Amino acid sequence: MSGPRTPELALGGQGASSTGSQDEDTADGIQSSHRMLSFSDALLSIIATVMILPVTHTEISPEQEFDKSVQKLLATRIAVYLMTFLIVTVAWAAHTRLFQVVGKIDDTLALLNLACMMSITFLPFTFSLMVAFPEVPLGILLFCVCVMAVGAMQALIVVYAFHRPHLLSPQIERSAHRALYRQHILGIVLRGPALCLAAAGFSLFFYPVSYLLMATVIFLPYVSKVAGWCRARLVGPREPPAHSLEIFTFDLHEPLSKERVEAFSDGVYAIVATLLILDIWNLRTSEARPFSEDNVPDSEDVKAKFHGSLVAALGASGPHFLAYFGSFATVGLLWFAHHSLFLHIRKATQPMGLLNTLSLAFVGGLPLAYQQTSAFARRPHDELESVRVSCAIIFFASIFQFAIWTTALLQEGETLQPSVRFGGQEHAFMFAKLTLYPGASLLAFACTCVLSSFSTAIFHAMQIAVPFTFLLLRLLVRLALAGLRGLRGLRGPARPTHTRPVPGATDDAQSPLLPAPC
Amino acid sequence: MSGPRTPELALGGQGASSTGSQDEDTADGIQSSHRMLSFSDALLSIIATVMILPVTHTEISPEQEFDKSVQKLLATRIAVYLMTFLIVTVAWAAHTRLFQVVGKIDDTLALLNLACMMSITFLPFTFSLMVAFPEVPLGILLFCVCVMAVGAMQALIVVYAFHRPHLLSPQIERSAHRALYRQHILGIVLRGPALCLAAAGFSLFFYPVSYLLMATVIFLPYVSKVAGWCRARLVGPREPPAHSLEIFTFDLHEPLSKERVEAFSDGVYAIVATLLILDIWNLRTSEARPFSEDNVPDSEDVKAKFHGSLVAALGASGPHFLAYFGSFATVGLLWFAHHSLFLHIRKATQPMGLLNTLSLAFVGGLPLAYQQTSAFARRPHDELESVRVSCAIIFFASIFQFAIWTTALLQEGETLQPSVRFGGQEHAFMFAKLTLYPGASLLAFACTCVLSSFSTAIFHAMQIAVPFTFLLLRLLVRLALAGLRGLRGLRGPARPTHTRPVPGATDDAQSPLLPAPC
Repeated sequence: MSGPRTPELALGGQGASSTGSQDEDTADGIQSSHRMLSFSDALLSIIATVMILPVTHTEISPEQEFDKSVQKLLATRIAVYLMTFLIVTVAWAAHTRLFQVVGKIDDTLALLNLACMMSITFLPFTFSLMVAFPEVPLGILLFCVCVMAVGAMQALIVVYAFHRPHLLSPQIERSAHRALYRQHILGIVLRGPALCLAAAGFSLFFYPVSYLLMATVIFLPYVSKVAGWCRARLVGPREPPAHSLEIFTFDLHEPLSKERVEAFSDGVYAIVATLLILDIWNLRTSEARPFSEDNVPDSEDVKAKFHGSLVAALGASGPHFLAYFGSFATVGLLWFAHHSLFLHIRKATQPMGLLNTLSLAFVGGLPLAYQQTSAFARRPHDELESVRVSCAIIFFASIFQFAIWTTALLQEGETLQPSVRFGGQEHAFMFAKLTLYPGASLLAFACTCVLSSFSTAIFHAMQIAVPFTFLLLRLLVRLALAGLRGLRGLRGPARPTHTRPVPGATDDAQSPLLPAPC
Repeated sequence: MSGPRTPELALGGQGASSTGSQDEDTADGIQSSHRMLSFSDALLSIIATVMILPVTHTEISPEQEFDKSVQKLLATRIAVYLMTFLIVTVAWAAHTRLFQVVGKIDDTLALLNLACMMSITFLPFTFSLMVAFPEVPLGILLFCVCVMAVGAMQALIVVYAFHRPHLLSPQIERSAHRALYRQHILGIVLRGPALCLAAAGFSLFFYPVSYLLMATVIFLPYVSKVAGWCRARLVGPREPPAHSLEIFTFDLHEPLSKERVEAFSDGVYAIVATLLILDIWNLRTSEARPFSEDNVPDSEDVKAKFHGSLVAALGASGPHFLAYFGSFATVGLLWFAHHSLFLHIRKATQPMGLLNTLSLAFVGGLPLAYQQTSAFARRPHDELESVRVSCAIIFFASIFQFAIWTTALLQEGETLQPSVRFGGQEHAFMFAKLTLYPGASLLAFACTCVLSSFSTAIFHAMQIAVPFTFLLLRLLVRLALAGLRGLRGLRGPARPTHTRPVPGATDDAQSPLLPAPC
């Protein structure tokens, strides 16, 4: 089973020679970094997503309106969540870059990596401290200390790996400019901590400057990515750099490892699906919960309120279960769309990575949608707002997935498998998969504007209809294509526009589909 | 083995080369199952571990003694946790087996798998319902319905995959006895659900029989594994079966895929490390928490209790942070030991899988240890019990890891890389890595028996000492080996016992180390 995967992993990870003589390597204490990276990805994705919990646990009593103060509280917490997500994603991207340079690990590196992870797990806490006490320098100080600790660990990893060059990736190990590389990588790793050191200094006498510096740390990678991409679009690609720089570019400015993007995304989807379950079990801090701390109906309650009937007691929380099923299906199907998409992606460029992060940030918000829909039962007068929030979250999570695909199509020769390129065989099907959720959520949102009193019913109908559509999608796409072909046949002879040299491309009639649902 | 290749019937003539180029496969909607399996592993490991939360959130007020009633409540919840862990692990093992038969997936199989996951996520809930209301048949009924739903999904997966044979693993696809295989696999998949159907029937008039039947479902795989292993040890391996059965054996009774065992274990370690953080953030339901729902100190509280000093407010919860660091280090280092161990394991046999499950079940209990140690601050009179519980959990989690290695050594030719076999180069080092935590926790436990008033100090000393020992382990082991060699040199000439044909094995003096610390 694992036989055919190994070469693929080696290619995605550390290059061809990592599988070379595994026995010799392990005897020397040198190990493939694959499993450590998966573990780090899992940890980081969970940490990034966990901060949605304070948002979902915002207590709103049944009497309270969904008014300005609650909205402000919610907005603050959502901001904390999004910022935390971005911070952790930046840390994850730096980690990915670092281990594209460091190809193999030994015990010391594994332990240093664990220490680095431990520092990163503290970032969300310091960040919420900062938001809760914006004028107190302690929050800023702690945040900066955390970032510096992470930077110190990463610098140690770099120094250690360059001290033992056989741990480096083959390109760098063989290079003559190794010292130059080390300097450059240390510069990249220590840039953020240095800014944070300055921020910590400023926090003691003039804290607004600290915030500016920290914002630079967090947003710099994104801004520079977007700016670079825009410049490349507008001006055209820059002239090829000198030889030594070219190899270097290969290592540090190339697409993120597709495998690690997938692993990080899988972690986010898995923890989001499970946060829903956690919410059913024992995190429901609302006053109206029918279940005790023991996460099943309380036996006293069952006797008193439901005349001893457990069925009635469970029936009372029926909407929770329905909402759970709906939300799990949503998370599962968004994962499914992501999985299908990345199956056809050959490499993930930087803009695609950024769009993926944004999509994942909204996926992380799905427990909020679940909590909103399961709250229908007890706060019916807010159902319109709840349905709209849920629709918006689903819409943004899925539209960014669609954007990944659109971005990939811009450089389809590099980024996509031939079968899904424009005019390819699976193109229409992939398009349908990726537009299903944006379309459905937009439709549901529009319906709630017209038929506001049926908003819950509309939302549930959407949640039930979409999974079945996914099951029948291949059939529906074939029917639609046949219909379009029939229509075109009526209008005139078929014009083979946009045909590309794709072997076996039988369905080249998708192009009229493209502009329609956007 | 070399049966005639099955003719592709109604697949549009494109599926002829299922093992051929990947492009053709993806064009046909057929995909490698790798990423779907990682995602399933992540989901299942989180679900298995989440049920520790009700245990850690058992509320004990500061006045209350750690008395019989609390002990009984805790014992019940721990039983629920362990049983849930076992149930989910059984489901995971069945899933692993199933996808050793089904080698590739398409969209339909991916969606069926998601539905199967959704059914499995409900198992813990039905189980706790059953424990809370042992006499009411509804809990039993729901549990059985869940198991039957999982079985139905798995049966659908099998039927679908055999209907499209290019999705099967190559051995089965090429076999002439495919119908026989299907029947056998369906039998395995539907055995549990059939027993549950009977249990559901009995629950309506005589429920003890239902419990007996359900216990059979849960424990049958384990009992049969252990029995088979014991028989093989005592009687010797059974006579080689007939030809067709032999191929079959390869698929269903072979070791679990090592990669999936690693992925499942990684998931458990990652979620456990993160549950600790969740506990710091916002799950602390105890009455004594210094932080508000917003997971940072409440600004009112800071003003009222700490005279506006945020440092003092954070200092008040200092023990929590220390306990967090200690527990994260424990989880991280146990993962590190597991990682080192599986790096040297070539394949995981069934007894090793069982031991790994048991080890993971105790790792899942580590948040309980964390919660116990962080509770020192508010209930000092119980610290002895808490320290002992923590030591016991750490001891069992690590001793089962050690047992995996011992079991692997029994069949070292098959299961281990040459370098760590008995007498191999890394043998002593691996031994030291795996005995560090059992030894340290046993020592700490013993110390608390003698010096009961210093138990907290002893525990913290252990948590600080072990990570440093890990860092210096390679040095310490070399020193110990040199010392032993020196001692042996004094006593007489070195006898090269247990030398094996390991190329480059320089340290063959480890054998005297083995019996010492056990």
